[in-house]
Amino acid sequence: MHKLPTLKSVKNFDSVAILTSGGDSPGMNPAIRALTRAAFNSGISHVYGINRGYSGLINNDIQKMTSRSVTNIVQRGGTVLKSARCLEFKEPNVRQDAAKILRDRGIEALFVIGGDGSMTGAHLFTEETGIPVIGLPGTIDNDIPGSDDTIGFDTAVNTALEAIDKIRDTAQSHERLFLVEVMGRNSGFIATQVGIACGAEMVVVPEYDFDLRELCLTLAQRRATGQGSSGIIVVAEGKDPGLTNRIAYQLEEQGQNPRICILGHIQRGGSPSGHDRMLASCLGASAVSYLLAGYNDIMVGVNQGSIVDIPLRRVITETKSLNRHLFDITTLLHK
Amino acid sequence: MHKLPTLKSVKNFDSVAILTSGGDSPGMNPAIRALTRAAFNSGISHVYGINRGYSGLINNDIQKMTSRSVTNIVQRGGTVLKSARCLEFKEPNVRQDAAKILRDRGIEALFVIGGDGSMTGAHLFTEETGIPVIGLPGTIDNDIPGSDDTIGFDTAVNTALEAIDKIRDTAQSHERLFLVEVMGRNSGFIATQVGIACGAEMVVVPEYDFDLRELCLTLAQRRATGQGSSGIIVVAEGKDPGLTNRIAYQLEEQGQNPRICILGHIQRGGSPSGHDRMLASCLGASAVSYLLAGYNDIMVGVNQGSIVDIPLRRVITETKSLNRHLFDITTLLHK
Amino acid sequence: MHKLPTLKSVKNFDSVAILTSGGDSPGMNPAIRALTRAAFNSGISHVYGINRGYSGLINNDIQKMTSRSVTNIVQRGGTVLKSARCLEFKEPNVRQDAAKILRDRGIEALFVIGGDGSMTGAHLFTEETGIPVIGLPGTIDNDIPGSDDTIGFDTAVNTALEAIDKIRDTAQSHERLFLVEVMGRNSGFIATQVGIACGAEMVVVPEYDFDLRELCLTLAQRRATGQGSSGIIVVAEGKDPGLTNRIAYQLEEQGQNPRICILGHIQRGGSPSGHDRMLASCLGASAVSYLLAGYNDIMVGVNQGSIVDIPLRRVITETKSLNRHLFDITTLLHK
Amino acid sequence: MHKLPTLKSVKNFDSVAILTSGGDSPGMNPAIRALTRAAFNSGISHVYGINRGYSGLINNDIQKMTSRSVTNIVQRGGTVLKSARCLEFKEPNVRQDAAKILRDRGIEALFVIGGDGSMTGAHLFTEETGIPVIGLPGTIDNDIPGSDDTIGFDTAVNTALEAIDKIRDTAQSHERLFLVEVMGRNSGFIATQVGIACGAEMVVVPEYDFDLRELCLTLAQRRATGQGSSGIIVVAEGKDPGLTNRIAYQLEEQGQNPRICILGHIQRGGSPSGHDRMLASCLGASAVSYLLAGYNDIMVGVNQGSIVDIPLRRVITETKSLNRHLFDITTLLHK
Repeated sequence: MHKLPTLKSVKNFDSVAILTSGGDSPGMNPAIRALTRAAFNSGISHVYGINRGYSGLINNDIQKMTSRSVTNIVQRGGTVLKSARCLEFKEPNVRQDAAKILRDRGIEALFVIGGDGSMTGAHLFTEETGIPVIGLPGTIDNDIPGSDDTIGFDTAVNTALEAIDKIRDTAQSHERLFLVEVMGRNSGFIATQVGIACGAEMVVVPEYDFDLRELCLTLAQRRATGQGSSGIIVVAEGKDPGLTNRIAYQLEEQGQNPRICILGHIQRGGSPSGHDRMLASCLGASAVSYLLAGYNDIMVGVNQGSIVDIPLRRVITETKSLNRHLFDITTLLHK
Repeated sequence: MHKLPTLKSVKNFDSVAILTSGGDSPGMNPAIRALTRAAFNSGISHVYGINRGYSGLINNDIQKMTSRSVTNIVQRGGTVLKSARCLEFKEPNVRQDAAKILRDRGIEALFVIGGDGSMTGAHLFTEETGIPVIGLPGTIDNDIPGSDDTIGFDTAVNTALEAIDKIRDTAQSHERLFLVEVMGRNSGFIATQVGIACGAEMVVVPEYDFDLRELCLTLAQRRATGQGSSGIIVVAEGKDPGLTNRIAYQLEEQGQNPRICILGHIQRGGSPSGHDRMLASCLGASAVSYLLAGYNDIMVGVNQGSIVDIPLRRVITETKSLNRHLFDITTLLHK
Repeated sequence: MHKLPTLKSVKNFDSVAILTSGGDSPGMNPAIRALTRAAFNSGISHVYGINRGYSGLINNDIQKMTSRSVTNIVQRGGTVLKSARCLEFKEPNVRQDAAKILRDRGIEALFVIGGDGSMTGAHLFTEETGIPVIGLPGTIDNDIPGSDDTIGFDTAVNTALEAIDKIRDTAQSHERLFLVEVMGRNSGFIATQVGIACGAEMVVVPEYDFDLRELCLTLAQRRATGQGSSGIIVVAEGKDPGLTNRIAYQLEEQGQNPRICILGHIQRGGSPSGHDRMLASCLGASAVSYLLAGYNDIMVGVNQGSIVDIPLRRVITETKSLNRHLFDITTLLHK
Repeated sequence: MHKLPTLKSVKNFDSVAILTSGGDSPGMNPAIRALTRAAFNSGISHVYGINRGYSGLINNDIQKMTSRSVTNIVQRGGTVLKSARCLEFKEPNVRQDAAKILRDRGIEALFVIGGDGSMTGAHLFTEETGIPVIGLPGTIDNDIPGSDDTIGFDTAVNTALEAIDKIRDTAQSHERLFLVEVMGRNSGFIATQVGIACGAEMVVVPEYDFDLRELCLTLAQRRATGQGSSGIIVVAEGKDPGLTNRIAYQLEEQGQNPRICILGHIQRGGSPSGHDRMLASCLGASAVSYLLAGYNDIMVGVNQGSIVDIPLRRVITETKSLNRHLFDITTLLHK
């Protein structure tokens, strides 16, 4: 349970807007709800919902929200504001046009829920246009610098685990080795947490180099010496497509007969977990407080159990690293 | 809720054995439990569990079961007796050796839970050795002739639906088209039921030929005329690998941008649904009744809501066809 | 998978209406969707949704439906048309007023999704007013005469089982006996299916009389002779409140220390199972076919695996009885 | 994702034991697994499992564990070591007898997984006998001083939410108010997190006094002024039985017609969530590190995102308070 910031309101806002951007993640809806309700209950008169992320912003696809607009969405996966990736928003003049659209509607500040790409757009937008922006970390990957947690990560881990718990039934019944690919092109947060939580025999993440052949040799040798024949290996998808297939091929070379399961998009949807609904609610409520306290160009996030503000500049320039000590728990607990 | 057969016991058995064979399916455990408990409660003194299907049978990998061996397995996925595919059992002399192993242990009859391949082995075994065999249809594919239902089908459909309900969140949030591949190399039962139940835009099954290019053209045209932009297409994997990818390619040719999700092995595991536990319990209890009533060389199955016996010869020579009228409901209800 | 009726359309309808009545059940939404889409696709021009059951009918709380009104509801629990119990509809003159409301809107036929109370209203309405009515069995209790199955029953059983699977963890960890009360005031269908599927030690249903003291004595004695100490007893709530508490009290008298868990309303909600979505889709599509084929004053239902028509008069005068043979499976499989 | 302590091993242990005590909680199994595997992998030769908590300890109900004893339990609810409450252990001489039993087996240290009562026993045991004890917080209530989190809390919250998400279907369909009672005799942690995460209209916790009549009056007035008619009120069970019924009675006095749902024991079971499996794994691994680093009479817990040690004396003398600021979010986000 998070510690919330205590902040004093020093600014007045009459009208704000919300958008969700980048890949959708479970918990975006409770975040939209929290921002909307907290805004109204903090004296802000108008809340606008921008559809389809930055794309809807530049196309003026914007509607008024009421308190009831966000009734009964707290438990829904995806985002009622829809999301999209928007290449045009990388152009400075497009961002100026977007600012004009907001100003024409009297919208004085913008909340952006999304991943690191979305935060880059948010930072440039406020820097260039002066319109205050507060970001909220919404991505299942948990790879946003400055925050220990992101909206959607916990749900994605639970979804992957439920799938693996089913796969394990077959793995055990047939005494087989399964390679399970989870999301994570650049980061192994999902793979690590899932790997520990499912009792994986091995976890492969993009953060740590490995010699594919050697890894498979080790695994095959270990399995030869009576480790039992069912097992789960969790693989983060990584940058280059086909990693899981390459591992399978190497394992076959070593006399293993692994099966592959690529979890894919099921990890992005589903009703948000209690943790993610709580996180989204706390971040949403705090984001409004930070805005009213005069903050700008920040993302709200979690640090050591507390809701904190992180400068967007830091969010978009740093890299979040995987805790090696934690990663090693996989090995410590496997056998 | 099934109607059970009323049968009079005319034979005595002192010792029987159970095995699960082929791909595991959710509900095999309640079937093992029902067979074991019904056997003991019907006066059979000894029940043996054979590990790893026919493979364990020919390797004499057999253990005694008690009533407690099957305590608390009713809710477990997979099979506690493990399963395997066994090529050697296709040899008549191997089947004779297997019969000797059973006779040496005093085992007088065999229950086989599995798919159509397993039923072929069961039929040949009893025909050649005279040892009574009763089959139970255990497969998620629901493609066993003579029975309207198989143990595991209902659970697999629910598992696929839960996954698609998550995928739909992203499909809607991003207004995208998803191709979801479900299991079914030779049959479209899963795809059809899943397709109707998830409200799919289209269902592709191996039973019905189609011109890939034409199908995608139709779909693209329909979508162009304002059908809304999110959608789910359910594809049975089919005989030739890569069908889903080929459909995706054709759709791209037609200007669509579909995403692919291959559900794979998660459909085979998981806690059996209420329906499958009930079905397995009724089939298991009935299988024992049929044995004691003097039946042999049959599979127990479901016909028009009743538990019935189906000659194994029929099971392995006929083909179960998909109800066209039912399949057409997909189209009727889509838009 | 159900066999659908083959019917020839002999009548034209331009405008129909749908309502859901009585306690909500999971699968009402896919039924509404199927009725709406099948109506439009069968050439009916107008479909109306009546809110809050008969209550909305007599209050003219009615809106036009489009094909899109029912998009993305197939997976939702509850009913988008809302439901209510309506005492006024028991008055003949109120039913005449209701008929006038429909006629004024040009609505020529009515689909009613609900339980036996709702079917009584439906029968009287068409008998007295001549407006054709087709009923669909929507209740978790599965107690509607003439149909082997009702929309919502399968989901309720699965929900109860998931809860009991959790309770079993504690029952086993603490070696305790749990009394789990499931829904069923007048019928033990849920209790029986849940009892078999969860491996209950005993099932108590309103259909069969029992001596409370004797039952608990038997149970206590059986448990004393080493049956293991954890266990689940499934109790249908029954007509008189407090049955589960009375059983607990008697068990305490016999030296047992049972815990009570009353599942209550969670059994009524939740995303409909694959089975219930399929059933609702087939019943909805068939209901439209029956209407167009000139049928009236009927309920569509399931008999021996086929979708059939059942005269409403029969539905409301008969009683559906629990299959004793099936009920006895509980005992057969327990120990 | 937790930060783990970096500790240097300064002591050798040859033989340790593990017990689970008090009410079971989901995640006890991954904690047992982590302790066992981390112990073996840290050079401890013998690990013993004590059955049924302190009760098994004083009855010498103890078995040897191997690495394989804890295979495939990471996903299971409850505790494979079983649990029990043990009044006798409150006697100092009983604790001395228990120490003798451990010494006779050569067991040099004890890990205790349980709630605050269990920690009291642990503290007294080590204080009086000198046998090192490390506690792990295992309870769904999250009410253990010194730790921000406990094993099982996250799962219990998710279980309660899944139930409420189902109840909401009926609440909305029938436009009704539901009172949902969650666990929490002395603390409102579950109620608060569940209340925020389900979007409750009101949350009642034992920490804050309230005038029952006034509270219900406020609620009734608010609802009268068009707040919509469905709603969820989350009530922690509290010290005095019947609170939820009393609230219902008062609401009826105010003209409301609430339904009651008491979630009860389902909150204690179920497969542990990813968060709880991770927490249990990290706490288990860290507990072994603390032991080897020479720590004693402590509980491992979570503080500001890091795994830390907390003196047992502090655990059993302090009280953990609910964050008022967090509690107030319920109100902030409701309307």
